[in-house]
Amino acid sequence: MPTTQDIKVAVDAVVFGYTSKEGLSVLLIKRNIDPFKDTWALPGGLVGNDESLEDAVQRELKEETGVSINYLEQLYSFGQPGRDPRNRVISITYYGLVKPDAFQIEAATDAAEVEWFNIKRIPQLAFDHEDIIAAAHDRLKNKILYQPIGFELLEERFPFSELEKLYMAVLDRSIDRRNFKKKVVKFGFLEETDEKQALAGAGRPGNLFCFNQQKYFQLQKEGINFEI
Amino acid sequence: MPTTQDIKVAVDAVVFGYTSKEGLSVLLIKRNIDPFKDTWALPGGLVGNDESLEDAVQRELKEETGVSINYLEQLYSFGQPGRDPRNRVISITYYGLVKPDAFQIEAATDAAEVEWFNIKRIPQLAFDHEDIIAAAHDRLKNKILYQPIGFELLEERFPFSELEKLYMAVLDRSIDRRNFKKKVVKFGFLEETDEKQALAGAGRPGNLFCFNQQKYFQLQKEGINFEI
Repeated sequence: MPTTQDIKVAVDAVVFGYTSKEGLSVLLIKRNIDPFKDTWALPGGLVGNDESLEDAVQRELKEETGVSINYLEQLYSFGQPGRDPRNRVISITYYGLVKPDAFQIEAATDAAEVEWFNIKRIPQLAFDHEDIIAAAHDRLKNKILYQPIGFELLEERFPFSELEKLYMAVLDRSIDRRNFKKKVVKFGFLEETDEKQALAGAGRPGNLFCFNQQKYFQLQKEGINFEI
Repeated sequence: MPTTQDIKVAVDAVVFGYTSKEGLSVLLIKRNIDPFKDTWALPGGLVGNDESLEDAVQRELKEETGVSINYLEQLYSFGQPGRDPRNRVISITYYGLVKPDAFQIEAATDAAEVEWFNIKRIPQLAFDHEDIIAAAHDRLKNKILYQPIGFELLEERFPFSELEKLYMAVLDRSIDRRNFKKKVVKFGFLEETDEKQALAGAGRPGNLFCFNQQKYFQLQKEGINFEI
């Protein structure tokens, strides 16, 4: 056991957003400090002495990007010696889900710029942040198949086709649309509203849907299996 | 962001073992240092400056209990301020699976004693170690339903009834034995050997089974779903 430990603790966050235009995206900052100055990276930073890990993530996100997160979950701790060229830094990583339109993103403190990048067009990143995004995407792919966390990414009211597109974007594959709709409707936490979809072109507009969270919690308590 | 961070990083391990006599058990040490001197706790300790997190877990386990772990997986990082009465210590926790009979357990360094405790008879523990065990048990319950990690806990050759008992001990509930056997046999990674079970009492001894790991990896590559 070491007598004097010289290790720092940071938090980093993979924030996923989704719009039908941009698809599944990740929020990145361009670093304005060394190391990796001018390189894109995940928002994050050192944990304050008296601050919980979750508070540290929220603070760093707010400071560097202007974003607050509703859905935030711990992902994994990355601690390989040498992952930071300065000294030993262990990063406790989180992933979060937001509706991109709900926030004005704004770079500050250690971030010169902040931008959403489609998950398939991530630029070269600082540190081991590509590995962290890959781990977060794997976790999201897995989780969305048995917990309806996708609604955190959608507007309050959405056409059913948007939910399908979201699943295809997250899973990075096509889905059996008929089977998907049958399963999701059967769960019972989706509500069809009277509001019609605004269509750009011709065609018959469908009704918009919304997610009934209260009903979901109730079904969850009853031990319903939400596997897609 | 703090200018001087004063946080230490530890690793702690929830090591699960299983014997048909003792059931599902957790390896605990009795601390011989303050704080919580003479209290049972998870084996663990501070991470060395140049050591990976996994190496730190294995070293602490070896030092304090004499045990080496084959199956080791990161669980969660516990970082609530105040979880350690001294200074801020963040614990990156792991869970591991071993065959208890494969090791002579032996307490040393920070451990005055080391002992296996049945999961239902865990004594009062130091720090937040009860929460850590609860999280590890949840993870194990979940994981054993879609990945055959239970074989890490069994002898190389075992009667089928042992596999059933193991699942019931881990899941803490009875299982539909006929359905369970049908599913497990269908997966194709279980081999029936010619060797007969040694029976203490009367009755017809069944054949012993063994886990074919190579076959499992092959099936896994083919994308087989191992959900029980």
